[in-house]
Amino acid sequence: MDIKDLIKKMTVEEKASLCSGLNFWNTKAIERLNIPSIMMTDGPHGLRKQAGSADHLGINESVKSTCFPTASALACSWNKDLVKNLGIALGEECQAEDVSIILGPGANIKRSPLCGRNFEYYSEDPYLSSQLSKNQIIGTQSQGVGTSLKHFAANNQECRRMTIDTLVDERTLREIYLASFETAVKEAQPWTVMCAYNKLNGEFCSQNNRLLNEILRDEWNFEGFVVSDWGAVVDRDKALSAGLELQMPADNGKGDSIIVEAIKNETLSEEALDRSVERLLNIILIALENKKENVTYDKEEHHNLAKSIAEECIVLLKNEENILPLNKNEKIAVIGELSKKARYQGGGSSHISPTRLDNAYDEILKIAKEENVLYSRGYDLSIDDINEELVNEAKELATKADKVVLFIGLPERYESEGFDREHLRMPINQESLVKELQSVNENIVVVLSNGSPIEMDFVNEVKGLVEGYLTGQAGGSAMANILYGEVNPSAKLAETFPVKLAHNPSHLNFPGEIDKVGYKEGIFVGYRYYDKKEMDVLFPFGHGLSYTNFEYSDLKLSSKEINDTDKLTVTVKVKNTGDVYGKEIVQLYVFDVVSNVQRPMKELKGFEKVGLNPGEEKEISFELDKRSFAYYNVDIKDWHVESGAFEILIGKSSRDIVLKETIKVNSTIEIKKAVTKNTAIGDIIDHPAVKPMIDAMMKMFGEGSDGLGEGDMFAQMMKYMPLRALATFNPMLEDTINNLIKEINSENK
Amino acid sequence: MDIKDLIKKMTVEEKASLCSGLNFWNTKAIERLNIPSIMMTDGPHGLRKQAGSADHLGINESVKSTCFPTASALACSWNKDLVKNLGIALGEECQAEDVSIILGPGANIKRSPLCGRNFEYYSEDPYLSSQLSKNQIIGTQSQGVGTSLKHFAANNQECRRMTIDTLVDERTLREIYLASFETAVKEAQPWTVMCAYNKLNGEFCSQNNRLLNEILRDEWNFEGFVVSDWGAVVDRDKALSAGLELQMPADNGKGDSIIVEAIKNETLSEEALDRSVERLLNIILIALENKKENVTYDKEEHHNLAKSIAEECIVLLKNEENILPLNKNEKIAVIGELSKKARYQGGGSSHISPTRLDNAYDEILKIAKEENVLYSRGYDLSIDDINEELVNEAKELATKADKVVLFIGLPERYESEGFDREHLRMPINQESLVKELQSVNENIVVVLSNGSPIEMDFVNEVKGLVEGYLTGQAGGSAMANILYGEVNPSAKLAETFPVKLAHNPSHLNFPGEIDKVGYKEGIFVGYRYYDKKEMDVLFPFGHGLSYTNFEYSDLKLSSKEINDTDKLTVTVKVKNTGDVYGKEIVQLYVFDVVSNVQRPMKELKGFEKVGLNPGEEKEISFELDKRSFAYYNVDIKDWHVESGAFEILIGKSSRDIVLKETIKVNSTIEIKKAVTKNTAIGDIIDHPAVKPMIDAMMKMFGEGSDGLGEGDMFAQMMKYMPLRALATFNPMLEDTINNLIKEINSENK
Repeated sequence: MDIKDLIKKMTVEEKASLCSGLNFWNTKAIERLNIPSIMMTDGPHGLRKQAGSADHLGINESVKSTCFPTASALACSWNKDLVKNLGIALGEECQAEDVSIILGPGANIKRSPLCGRNFEYYSEDPYLSSQLSKNQIIGTQSQGVGTSLKHFAANNQECRRMTIDTLVDERTLREIYLASFETAVKEAQPWTVMCAYNKLNGEFCSQNNRLLNEILRDEWNFEGFVVSDWGAVVDRDKALSAGLELQMPADNGKGDSIIVEAIKNETLSEEALDRSVERLLNIILIALENKKENVTYDKEEHHNLAKSIAEECIVLLKNEENILPLNKNEKIAVIGELSKKARYQGGGSSHISPTRLDNAYDEILKIAKEENVLYSRGYDLSIDDINEELVNEAKELATKADKVVLFIGLPERYESEGFDREHLRMPINQESLVKELQSVNENIVVVLSNGSPIEMDFVNEVKGLVEGYLTGQAGGSAMANILYGEVNPSAKLAETFPVKLAHNPSHLNFPGEIDKVGYKEGIFVGYRYYDKKEMDVLFPFGHGLSYTNFEYSDLKLSSKEINDTDKLTVTVKVKNTGDVYGKEIVQLYVFDVVSNVQRPMKELKGFEKVGLNPGEEKEISFELDKRSFAYYNVDIKDWHVESGAFEILIGKSSRDIVLKETIKVNSTIEIKKAVTKNTAIGDIIDHPAVKPMIDAMMKMFGEGSDGLGEGDMFAQMMKYMPLRALATFNPMLEDTINNLIKEINSENK
Repeated sequence: MDIKDLIKKMTVEEKASLCSGLNFWNTKAIERLNIPSIMMTDGPHGLRKQAGSADHLGINESVKSTCFPTASALACSWNKDLVKNLGIALGEECQAEDVSIILGPGANIKRSPLCGRNFEYYSEDPYLSSQLSKNQIIGTQSQGVGTSLKHFAANNQECRRMTIDTLVDERTLREIYLASFETAVKEAQPWTVMCAYNKLNGEFCSQNNRLLNEILRDEWNFEGFVVSDWGAVVDRDKALSAGLELQMPADNGKGDSIIVEAIKNETLSEEALDRSVERLLNIILIALENKKENVTYDKEEHHNLAKSIAEECIVLLKNEENILPLNKNEKIAVIGELSKKARYQGGGSSHISPTRLDNAYDEILKIAKEENVLYSRGYDLSIDDINEELVNEAKELATKADKVVLFIGLPERYESEGFDREHLRMPINQESLVKELQSVNENIVVVLSNGSPIEMDFVNEVKGLVEGYLTGQAGGSAMANILYGEVNPSAKLAETFPVKLAHNPSHLNFPGEIDKVGYKEGIFVGYRYYDKKEMDVLFPFGHGLSYTNFEYSDLKLSSKEINDTDKLTVTVKVKNTGDVYGKEIVQLYVFDVVSNVQRPMKELKGFEKVGLNPGEEKEISFELDKRSFAYYNVDIKDWHVESGAFEILIGKSSRDIVLKETIKVNSTIEIKKAVTKNTAIGDIIDHPAVKPMIDAMMKMFGEGSDGLGEGDMFAQMMKYMPLRALATFNPMLEDTINNLIKEINSENK
């Protein structure tokens, strides 16, 4: 079916009808032209297909599907293939349920740990986030099922998300908030991109021409269609012009009639509508082509996949005296309601009905002998108040065990889509339990369930600390395997855990002032901030321990000096020097040693996860390109590398850099600035005509400078003195300066 | 002489001639009209009148004058009368030297401790800075000598100061950078204000109409003239229109002819020139009227004044085990070249030739017995390299003494006008000496000479720590008196000492990117930042110890609730509970408990210094007004108080709040915002028509919400949902909503 021909056959009303939903989840069909309706459902870590077709709020119970680890957990795997496999599994479940597009992944940056929806997002780092998004999309779409990369863009808080104006400077937008989408769009081509609720720099994302047409389409060559976040459309005609094809959910035909009317009034061109319809039909027809009939998926197999993914997501944060792994023969006290009543996913549109649900306690019993596993509830998960009886019971139990494994975390009421947290504290009844138990048993392992960082005043009270995040329906069995060393932990944090909320870079400007939020920390998000500010953190970005050890050596660069158009190959060897199999996440950061613009102390530009048997060594290879060294230059509106030295840093984490080499990168782009009377002398000091003038001035100053104190104040002042000021202090120089300006500018042409 | 008549008699050329200097320091005379030339010279903490009249660089040796403590030291006195007395003394010296205007004080905010000129500025806090500036101006002008409040405005770094564009949002400008000038202008009316070199939000301050005409004249009613910083004029005609009357220094008549030509071309109105000339003549004639002939001043008396001022400027930062004051009978090792070669002032245009110069070592000998005072040089002040011989000599000496008094500080080459520091470290040969000496004698008192904060890795190695700043020509004798308890220290820091440079609020954006610097930390400057970020500091704003103790009690407010048009009287009692006379600086801070805009945890709104004999108690009284509670509201372009609770905090320092009371302030200004379809429901929830609509929606959500997880997500989401979104999810509400919007808006009219 030729789409252009098809469009010619359509009435304006039919065309407009394709631009909004039939209901909460489906597009409209046009039966006379054999255009089918396709279905979208929520994701991103499992399928939320609703049972009741008439539900127009989108909140009915959904059909059962596999609940995989949420994105904040998944990101800790740093495993591209694993994420791809998760994507494939989601695709299979969609095919089985007649779903054409699953809404996800979410590539928003974790600007603040308070954001209620962080559990659905990958990272504070755009490179990591975009690499993982890309792989999830590739996986799902390999199954003939579309994705919706969301929420585009700069939707980094729930507070007032539908009205807030997010004010972000261009460089920050490019390097952080857009970069998190960019690679995924360019290299994975999601069928759809979902626009965010918020305004970006003054205009709603749903009708933001710069965002949806200029950047997404013109610059990044996005080929799919843009769908609104549910309820995000404000002015339907404006949104269509700006590049939003599909308004969701159904709005009683109101949006469609606005489009029809706008075409009649010629405030909207029919060509614009045709272009939108073409994009919609293109995807609808691809969906149709790829539809597999009567397929199912193996629930057991997917559950096992969810488990093996979860096992790579659980981060071992602390392991003093090798308190972990647990030994099957030692007596452990499992304490905490969360060990039996798992918190494994977040609240909101991603909340799904799992096919099965493991809990850690039962899974522990499958590994250890029953007589070695004691249990006490410890606290009431549904409230914050301390229940003395539960505390005393738990303490008594703790005295009887070799080790305490305490399950605590954030209750669902603490974090969810729809609202942000106001602090990073745990419920007091859970947090206080750590100290209580520590007073009777020093061997404490804390296991956390939470979607986003918490403050841990108790961190020094415990020997073992395991971050479980929200690890999906098989999280319980995965956790049991990690705790007992059946599986060696191999995850690393994809976000910084700050010592306290106030330390977070967005703290001075979160969640903004009523209808505006300024991202004044700029590019200094996450570790970029903590590093630059030299601040202590609770756990750094990229941190995670293993039951084995890895040693790094032989960092090699393919060249000592390259042009910014060249590629650089970086290799490094990693060896498992311990005695169990393990996987290590090798991280490559780049640091621009000297720069005219503010740059982070390091930026992630490569990572690989590698599995190694005891004694085994492998060489890891990275390829860096211009973008690895560049910043976004707002003057030339492009990525730019400043010529000079860059450090290539290989780290076990962002704060554990083990090897370092220096490369010189030469820019092939020369940025020429016109010289004016306000140009600083220091900025043109290399020009042969400038030096003699300076020397003359310095001599003049030097002769009389005794009265003004010591040192090279004049040399320093001169460096930044504008040309005009030379004439102020020495009017005879006026002509010389004017000629100089002409000369340099003409040479620059 | 009627000025308007005088102007009528002048040719355009004569008028223009008054608008620039005759030379480096004088205005032009017009002899045929008996208009005299007046002289300006540098300040601000002493007179720098140059000897050679032909010097057109302004750097020749100057006549001798009293060098008072520089502003960074002076501010630590927190003593308004003392600062006024310093102003009076400066006025007397000016009269004696035929100087009509002294260039100062400097009211720029210490945004970064790196700023090379911070020693010339008062504080990181605008209230303290403006109160002190005001008093210095009142003092000097009481002697018939003018001042020049500088550098207006937002000139907070030396790096590229002549070309940098300082980008500051309006609220920050008003609350921090302009506020530091505002009270001084309004309440002390300096004869002149000196415009800064830099650009402010895109336009050079020297030709910034908004700054010089709209804010300074129209809003603040400044009555004097504006003089350029030396060499700050860029476009002379534009500068004149923008409100800059006097261009300095002489530029060979170029500026004048531009003005004449602009009048001929009618690009500048003669009225504008007349207005400028009137302002100039007004001050010139006041100077003439107030000129005292053949007066002198008593150099001895001024030296003693400089000493008594310095004694109130020296801050006792640390005094473990009451290591200070020293006892005349104990043996002390005075170590450090700075004890004999005082660093007492900064480099640059404020650098003066003192009438006398005390050094601490000689002054100590006047107090203690000679046999009890040992000396060793310790390091070579002119270099950074460690001289092992000097170190060993010092260590040996230290073993022979009861206590070590180690004088260290920043050499003049480390800080000066004209360039910024790049780090906060001391020279390594000085810093390392602390540990070396501590290894042989645990009783170490460090005495610091520096214009601005330093990092102190050694802080835990010393028992006593005395911050001398740059305390002027009598600093040596003042220090000896403080060390031996002849005078009880009574100064407190007027700026925060951060643990390290990277912690400073401006760190991510200092000194900017080539030609731009964004003040992205906004209002969070100094303690406003460290408090909000809950960051540890080395020494907090307002900190300083005494040899006695003070107790606070009976904090009382004149009312429990006021309107923002009312005044509030706050009283508190302070008692000297120690056994020596002492002065205490009582600090009053205000905190807005709940606000729709970001506000600091506390802001200084009052301070008093009170002297108390042992056992004596006094009641201190403060008066607060609207401004004490207000923030600058950019929408209404005015100061605004949000109705609600405010805490009145009384502190010994910004981090040692000893008493607290709460007051409710009611705004008399109601800010009405138009309701639109994008208004969040939570923002109009109090309206009686809104509640039933919400309840209906909640019921609708509630009925189906089982599938989405726990809790009150919907209530939370609803709060920030815009009215339009209600219609998206429930199209039947469309009309109801439109009517509601009309209704509320009509009520608001």
